[in-house]
Amino acid sequence: MTALYRRVAFVGLGLIASSMAHAIRRAGLAEAMTGTARSAETRATAREMGLVDHVCDTAAEAVAGADLVVLCVPMGAMEALAREIAPHLAPGATLTDVGSVKQSVFDAVAPHLPGHVHFIPGHPIAGTEQSGPRAGFADLFVNRWCILTPPEGHDAAALDRLTRLWQGMGANVDLMDAAHHDLVLAVTSHTPHLIAYTMVGVADDLRRVTDSEVIKYSAAGFRDFTRIAASDPVMWRDVFLTNREATLEILGRFTEELFVLQRAIRQGDGAHLQAYFSRTRAIRRGIIEAGQDTDAPDFGRIKP
Amino acid sequence: MTALYRRVAFVGLGLIASSMAHAIRRAGLAEAMTGTARSAETRATAREMGLVDHVCDTAAEAVAGADLVVLCVPMGAMEALAREIAPHLAPGATLTDVGSVKQSVFDAVAPHLPGHVHFIPGHPIAGTEQSGPRAGFADLFVNRWCILTPPEGHDAAALDRLTRLWQGMGANVDLMDAAHHDLVLAVTSHTPHLIAYTMVGVADDLRRVTDSEVIKYSAAGFRDFTRIAASDPVMWRDVFLTNREATLEILGRFTEELFVLQRAIRQGDGAHLQAYFSRTRAIRRGIIEAGQDTDAPDFGRIKP
Repeated sequence: MTALYRRVAFVGLGLIASSMAHAIRRAGLAEAMTGTARSAETRATAREMGLVDHVCDTAAEAVAGADLVVLCVPMGAMEALAREIAPHLAPGATLTDVGSVKQSVFDAVAPHLPGHVHFIPGHPIAGTEQSGPRAGFADLFVNRWCILTPPEGHDAAALDRLTRLWQGMGANVDLMDAAHHDLVLAVTSHTPHLIAYTMVGVADDLRRVTDSEVIKYSAAGFRDFTRIAASDPVMWRDVFLTNREATLEILGRFTEELFVLQRAIRQGDGAHLQAYFSRTRAIRRGIIEAGQDTDAPDFGRIKP
Repeated sequence: MTALYRRVAFVGLGLIASSMAHAIRRAGLAEAMTGTARSAETRATAREMGLVDHVCDTAAEAVAGADLVVLCVPMGAMEALAREIAPHLAPGATLTDVGSVKQSVFDAVAPHLPGHVHFIPGHPIAGTEQSGPRAGFADLFVNRWCILTPPEGHDAAALDRLTRLWQGMGANVDLMDAAHHDLVLAVTSHTPHLIAYTMVGVADDLRRVTDSEVIKYSAAGFRDFTRIAASDPVMWRDVFLTNREATLEILGRFTEELFVLQRAIRQGDGAHLQAYFSRTRAIRRGIIEAGQDTDAPDFGRIKP
């Protein structure tokens, strides 16, 4: 494939950036890549791995001369970063990000950008529970969706090129309004994560059941929650701080529904429980048919 | 290995019974196996597969002459089944079960048994989201725990033989008081399942987010919940009906904790969220170190 960009710059070198670097290199989507990270240790690791062509010590250096800049930092760091790099962005460059919440990223970043930069926020719906530059792999985005939320008055050519980049990494691309994105992700990601964190926290905090018991008997369902609850704490803190309203809305629906089931348990209403549990099987089938999960039992889990 | 039992009889031929049959056959733990199921279709499938040596049309036939009888039916069916088979159980036979709740199984079954039968309830902490005689596989119990809850005054030799059977199938065996078992499983299994069912139900029921969106973007966390929420509805109905008090206790703790996190989100208390999300990583590490889950990212999920 012909390179789509002359130089791609990553600010932040965690799971998503490192996966993008591997995928871009494999498909030849950029002539060169630079990158930087706030932590000296991460920069040293990235240098040692040869993750990108040049690991810079500052964001200003990394973005200079890049025609695509990808912000891959926790959302709480986006605004300060936008201020820092704005004077160094090349005219005509595209700026994107991979944050899990889109309206707040736009509000934090857009006001600081010069008029000659095309800002197109994005969010690849892909990840694992692991973090850092060594966690990335080229296949992460294959057959996953990437949602772009181009603002009103965006540059059509810049959007087209960014779309082709994600497709080149194996992803399908959808366009969406930022606010709707944040509601959809509150359902498919943010609320499930909060619930998993809560369940794991509760289990860790009981006096009558020991941690050792929780660990030994986790294969009965609980261990699935612990994977999600092992995700990066800073990233997830920022998700809930920046997608507050949609998360609270879905959490409200969740607790309402949970109370109805709780009442059915208390009252011994087996018919209600069985009907509820039967209905939820269909959505699993839909996910498997759409190629968004494996139908192998237990995820085809690798035996430890 | 020398056979531990002359004849093992399964009543119910779903995921657990069929996995036991494969594991017992592979390790030569029984000289013969019989089985039965309420559904004619299940019996026909089991016959076609040669799952056991003889598939019987009734439970009475299946258990006759067996020195080990394993009840593998939903818990709501246990009491009627105990009444039905009691007159046909051989003197000195061991009776066990694989139900997810132990106190209620004991209360439902024990009163109907003749004095010459050794009843030792059990619960293998293993499974997948799939059901039925074709879902079983011989490795299901390898390195998993099986909890036995021998009642007061149990027969030591019968317990020892049943323990060796589970060990022969690859499991580790723990002994526990039935009530404590039910509390531990409310934490590691029953409450997580109820929460997963609830979250999937909520997602399925929103007007502002379509099912198609939920399915497409499920890789962001939600799809993990759908696996658990695809488990057998009748089995899970019975879990909540029979482990009511422990489930309600843990659910109460869960909602309490969830409300604290919800308030932290509403108030923008990032320090609280980050501290909470950091703490839960440790328990994941404990599970991996104990060999109860893989450390491969995303469970080493097989790509669909």
